Amino acid sequence: MRQKFLFTKTRKEIGAEEKSLNASLLIKAGFIDKLAAGVYIYLPLGLRVLRKIEDIIREEMNRIGGQEILMPAMTPKEIWQKTDRWDAFDALFKFKGYDEKEYALGATHEEVVTPLLKKFVFSYRDLPKYVYQIQTKFRNEQRAKAGLLRGREFSMKDLYSFHADEKDLENYYEMVQAAYFKIFARLGLDKLTHLTFASGGAFAKYSHEFQTLSENGEDLIYICPKCRLAYNKEIINEIEKCHGCKLGKSEFKEAKAIETGNIFKLGTRFSSSFEFKYVDERGKEKDVFMGCYGIGSSRIMGSIVEVYNDKKGILWPKTIAPCQIHLLSIGENKALAKKTELLYNELIKKGFEVLYDDRDESAGIKLNDADLLGLPLRLVLSEKTLKNNSIELKSRNLDRIELIKIDKIVKYLEDSLNK
Amino acid sequence: MRQKFLFTKTRKEIGAEEKSLNASLLIKAGFIDKLAAGVYIYLPLGLRVLRKIEDIIREEMNRIGGQEILMPAMTPKEIWQKTDRWDAFDALFKFKGYDEKEYALGATHEEVVTPLLKKFVFSYRDLPKYVYQIQTKFRNEQRAKAGLLRGREFSMKDLYSFHADEKDLENYYEMVQAAYFKIFARLGLDKLTHLTFASGGAFAKYSHEFQTLSENGEDLIYICPKCRLAYNKEIINEIEKCHGCKLGKSEFKEAKAIETGNIFKLGTRFSSSFEFKYVDERGKEKDVFMGCYGIGSSRIMGSIVEVYNDKKGILWPKTIAPCQIHLLSIGENKALAKKTELLYNELIKKGFEVLYDDRDESAGIKLNDADLLGLPLRLVLSEKTLKNNSIELKSRNLDRIELIKIDKIVKYLEDSLNK
Repeated sequence: MRQKFLFTKTRKEIGAEEKSLNASLLIKAGFIDKLAAGVYIYLPLGLRVLRKIEDIIREEMNRIGGQEILMPAMTPKEIWQKTDRWDAFDALFKFKGYDEKEYALGATHEEVVTPLLKKFVFSYRDLPKYVYQIQTKFRNEQRAKAGLLRGREFSMKDLYSFHADEKDLENYYEMVQAAYFKIFARLGLDKLTHLTFASGGAFAKYSHEFQTLSENGEDLIYICPKCRLAYNKEIINEIEKCHGCKLGKSEFKEAKAIETGNIFKLGTRFSSSFEFKYVDERGKEKDVFMGCYGIGSSRIMGSIVEVYNDKKGILWPKTIAPCQIHLLSIGENKALAKKTELLYNELIKKGFEVLYDDRDESAGIKLNDADLLGLPLRLVLSEKTLKNNSIELKSRNLDRIELIKIDKIVKYLEDSLNK
Repeated sequence: MRQKFLFTKTRKEIGAEEKSLNASLLIKAGFIDKLAAGVYIYLPLGLRVLRKIEDIIREEMNRIGGQEILMPAMTPKEIWQKTDRWDAFDALFKFKGYDEKEYALGATHEEVVTPLLKKFVFSYRDLPKYVYQIQTKFRNEQRAKAGLLRGREFSMKDLYSFHADEKDLENYYEMVQAAYFKIFARLGLDKLTHLTFASGGAFAKYSHEFQTLSENGEDLIYICPKCRLAYNKEIINEIEKCHGCKLGKSEFKEAKAIETGNIFKLGTRFSSSFEFKYVDERGKEKDVFMGCYGIGSSRIMGSIVEVYNDKKGILWPKTIAPCQIHLLSIGENKALAKKTELLYNELIKKGFEVLYDDRDESAGIKLNDADLLGLPLRLVLSEKTLKNNSIELKSRNLDRIELIKIDKIVKYLEDSLNK
């Protein structure tokens, strides 16, 4: 992709009203723009990042048997009344249609997916089933000052599982835990992310959150230094020692974190509201057991910026960077421009994702923008490097600059990007 | 994909309240489900169709320089007031947040994209620019009885173009027309779709619609039989003869059609509301010219079902079918099951998209469901075909059944699917 082609530009001044680190950096770099508190526009490079995050999540959901669907944002009042959440769920945006019928914007989709599955599941032979979507959610948040960490409109993946009994739910719950850790590993967040006990609701004593350590996180967690399990502040008073390794609570370490995922045993809470039953092997009617599993794709984008940045800008993990390579030509020599153009075309042909800074800007501006945008590898061609038939290569997360011969660069990139 | 794995099933009874042909067929086949009037859930096979339609549109938008972004559904009142559409646009769903601030659900996005581009475009050097999204729109429709043809919540692609002058807008407008015909050709709708003059608004005398002929279409158009141009009923009284070939209006043919796309010269209607100007080569401030170009991805899904169906079910064009091949094994012989399993795995390995009916159902049910689902090619293995080391192959749109030797089938499929 040529930078001249992009309609976005980096920006120095973005207005004082954006307080969050993640949104400030993303707006300055031209990845997103702000439309209202908690409501953002994804610009071309930002949308690429969001889609890559979603694709990683999608692949891991498919791997554990998830079937992708797409549920609407517009949900009728009746279904929320069935579960007594129309009044109780205070984050619902509500509105009316022509017919004076009332609707809520979907903040979560148990009320849609439960009656949906009821139309197709009748017998034990139809269970278990796993259904997910990656979709836009809406929540009437009182405070929406944390950029992509707490949106009023945001993208998330929600998976719902349906089981014949509690044991089957528990087994799948463990599988989702493992899938979530795979996702966090692929996103470069596994070492920063802790499986965290949190309050569980009516059915289970605890639910589990995935908490990603970050100075600007809105949650406080207590981490067992021995086994990495953690406990949300909301339940820490109930805890004596670690559920995993039995280490005493006094040794836990307090830390700020962002809730990037959460998984929940719903039991029969929603199936009973919708009288969703199945017939077992002996012909007996039984309640369906459910689990729900969320992961915030746009919140993860914000979290990654919160934890991977420095004074100069963002440092994208290569799995979700909008492009892996940032190619810069510095200088006004015509031979140089031609050489860079050739290299750009060759890299594209080889299948690399390259952002090519073909703008008529100074070396300073190009280098600063490259740091701000934060692509994993920076290649610089200049008159100086050309004299040595070479190219300058720098990883965004390392200080070292290497000089690579031009005819070796493709091989080098293939190796370092694990292609 | 194995049919046993899918949580959806075909359904005979879908309730009397769904009147539209497209939604009835799609619900019966398990592609979508209805949540409220004009609000549908996309089930696994239906979502595959929708995504394929969106991918075709995306490719053609990228080819004419479109840059993909994603704008929010939640849009603040102030931006609609700037263009005097908060009260005038009666299809807006409106709601309030905690802060008593008012929002509308995006029914179109001129009010978002115009001030967005204003942040990045300053000089003639920054023009032209083309920006699009494929996103969920909301419209407070009084009548939403036409299934996917008129949704209250629906998926559409909206492209916006920004130009230094009218001539540049006109050139691009022609390019989009050509791109739209490519899209309709890839969707199998080109022969049924007419470029149609419609009312143009303040800036241009006419806009253009893409009208796809269909008995259940809500629009009435008048087609010039000589050059295929058409005229919407709303403007036919202003027309004397065909704008293209000059044929007299008396020879036009009346037909019902679905508006599947529409393109519009906006001129300076929105740029002037937002005081969006640029500086030209001589340093003079000038208005930016705009165009907008819509195509309804979910409406196209409905339109295709409206025009490609028979008594037995849907006939998907191969470019957007959820899978190209429906593989059925008929009979209970174990050798047969094993053989089908082997063939399924081989086809998957070769990269074919296969729906494999591995259910324990009768021949009648499997064959009827295959017709209802409407995948382009049906393969049947049975004891009878196995005796000849053969497989039965039938195109959904032809009556003829061919018997192909099993060891020839891959080659045959590669040829007939143009791989």
